[in-house]
Formats: sequence, structure tokens, C-alpha cells
Amino acid sequence: MKKNIGPVLGLYPTPVTVLGTETGGKVNWVTIAHVGIIGLDRIILSMNKSHASNKAIKENRTVSINLVNEEMLVEADYIGLVSGNKVDKSGVFDYCYGELKGAPLIKKSPLIMECEVVDIYETEQHESFIVKPVNTYVDESMMSDDGSIDYEKVRPVLFEMPHRQYISTGKIVGQCWSIGKGYKK
Amino acid sequence: MKKNIGPVLGLYPTPVTVLGTETGGKVNWVTIAHVGIIGLDRIILSMNKSHASNKAIKENRTVSINLVNEEMLVEADYIGLVSGNKVDKSGVFDYCYGELKGAPLIKKSPLIMECEVVDIYETEQHESFIVKPVNTYVDESMMSDDGSIDYEKVRPVLFEMPHRQYISTGKIVGQCWSIGKGYKK
Repeated sequence: MKKNIGPVLGLYPTPVTVLGTETGGKVNWVTIAHVGIIGLDRIILSMNKSHASNKAIKENRTVSINLVNEEMLVEADYIGLVSGNKVDKSGVFDYCYGELKGAPLIKKSPLIMECEVVDIYETEQHESFIVKPVNTYVDESMMSDDGSIDYEKVRPVLFEMPHRQYISTGKIVGQCWSIGKGYKK
Repeated sequence: MKKNIGPVLGLYPTPVTVLGTETGGKVNWVTIAHVGIIGLDRIILSMNKSHASNKAIKENRTVSINLVNEEMLVEADYIGLVSGNKVDKSGVFDYCYGELKGAPLIKKSPLIMECEVVDIYETEQHESFIVKPVNTYVDESMMSDDGSIDYEKVRPVLFEMPHRQYISTGKIVGQCWSIGKGYKK
């Protein structure tokens, strides 16, 4: 039996990310999980306009997307508790740089994409940055033998509303375009 | 030690959804996981232009988003194996209707949003439908005592590339805006 709970956005859980930006020579971090995939090569990062990071992303047209695992969850949550407009968060994570200016990479993150902004989709209170990965960095210990990403090793932390809880990545439960072959009406 | 694997889209895992549409009196389903959240009230559904469902969504400006749990994974995967342009998939799921025309609701799905299309974001090979939930239907057995969604009970199946595997929702590993209070440099 189902209940209609009204116009509730229920597309969870989604991956938690820390975005790395820079403005005025200062690094800033913001934690978001309102993210998505467009086509096969773009990511959308939806951010309230009040975030200090928005200005930096518009200035440099670059941003790093750092996936969050359980080992860095306390820091990632702390980032979400304090505003970069008031507190200097630059020292929370050790970082380095790849190819792009303005997109610091978190050393502790298991998987990082350094991205260029290709568009901004605007709604009332939010700017949603549409970005393309230019380089993707993965811990070698979290790759498959064929050199691709192994998400059972990366184990990204996910997020849900309305209870605002972090959820772990579970286990493999099937192979896409394969288990459906067993379908019988 | 990290390795640069090039411009790889690595924002996984993401929730698997079956979209319900209707055209010419015929119901169709398509399985996608290239989805995302915009702001606090919009969802983006990114679909290759070749899908039969795109035409239906544009016609009615409505669509249902049905989250997928393990109990309906074989059917959801089968949907992704065959094209609605060639095979009548209407009978794969039992369905009913809510408030909107053109947006059939899968009875077996634990959580369904019936949505209106508010915009279409176009890229080379994809149409990304930006939709707003009008009503959200949840199995009563999958709600918290306060009447909100309990994702530990819904347990949406997730998807990853490049290995195209389905991954289960794991367990709660922390409370957002709480565990970060324990942060110390």
C-alpha cells in the first residue's frame, strides 16, 4: 500500500563530493551531494547561490570534484558545517594541483576529477554548474586489473534527505544488460 | 599513489530508475541511471535521443520516476536490454495512474515520483529532461514513524560505470552536519 507524501524530491542516495576551488590565492572547499550526470561526459553540480565557492568557480571556470570515502567523512562533514565566507577552510585537507588552475585536488580522496565549467544552469536560489572532467585521478589501489575504476574499492559515501544521513556503498547485486536475460513474463 | 586515467566521468554510483511514459495509448518503460538533482525541487534525467521514451515525454510533458529495488531488478534490467521502438514493453510491470496523464506508476516500485517537465537541456546526443515531482508515492512499510522516506527500507539499487554493475545501498555511516563537529586539525 502506497502513500502520497506530496511533491517530495526522492532521488536518493547520491554521491557525496567535496568541491575544490580557489579565489584570491585562497583555497576553499564545499561539500555537496546534489549532483548528477548529463550525457556521457558532463556532470552537474547544483549549489545554493550563497556558497562562497560559486564566485570562485565562475572566476576560474574550473573546479575539482573529490569523491568522499569513510576515511575522510568527518572532514567532509565539517566542511559542510562552516561557511567559507566566515571561516578559512583551506587547511582542512592536504592538497596538490593537476593541470588546471583554481582546482585543488584532495590527496586523501580516492577519486578526483578536475573539471572545466562548460555552462551554468540557473534557477531561483541555485546555480547548477555543468562541467566536463579534463583529468581523473584514482588511487592505484582502487583500480581493477584492467586499469579502470573499481567502485567496490573506492566505496563512495552517499547521502539522503530527509534524514540527512550518510550511507555507504553496498555490494554488487548484478550485472547490467545481463541479469535481465533471465526475465520471463 | 594516484594515476591519471584521463577525462573519465567517475561520479558513481547513482540511483537506477525506470521512467514510465505513454504515447499513442501505449505505455513504455526505460531504465536509466544518468540522473541528478537540481536545487531542492528539480530532477534531471539524461537520455540518449534514440530512446523511444523521449518522444513520449516531449508529447505529454510528464514522466514517472520509479526507483528500483532488488525485487524488481531483473525486470528493470530487461527493460534496458530491449528498445521500445522494436518491442512492446508495456506488460513488463503492472501499473496504475496517479494525477498526471502519460505517467504510469509501477506498482512494484518502492518509491515513485510523478513529474512534470519544466525544461529540456540539450547536448549533442542527449536530451536531459528537467522535471519537478508533483506527487511522490512511497510504500507505507518503507516510511519512518514520522511519515518520511526511510532509505534503509527503500534500499534503492545503484549503478556504476565502467563495469556496468548494480550495487546495493549500504548502511548508515553517519549523520550529516553532526559527525563533523568532532573534527580536529
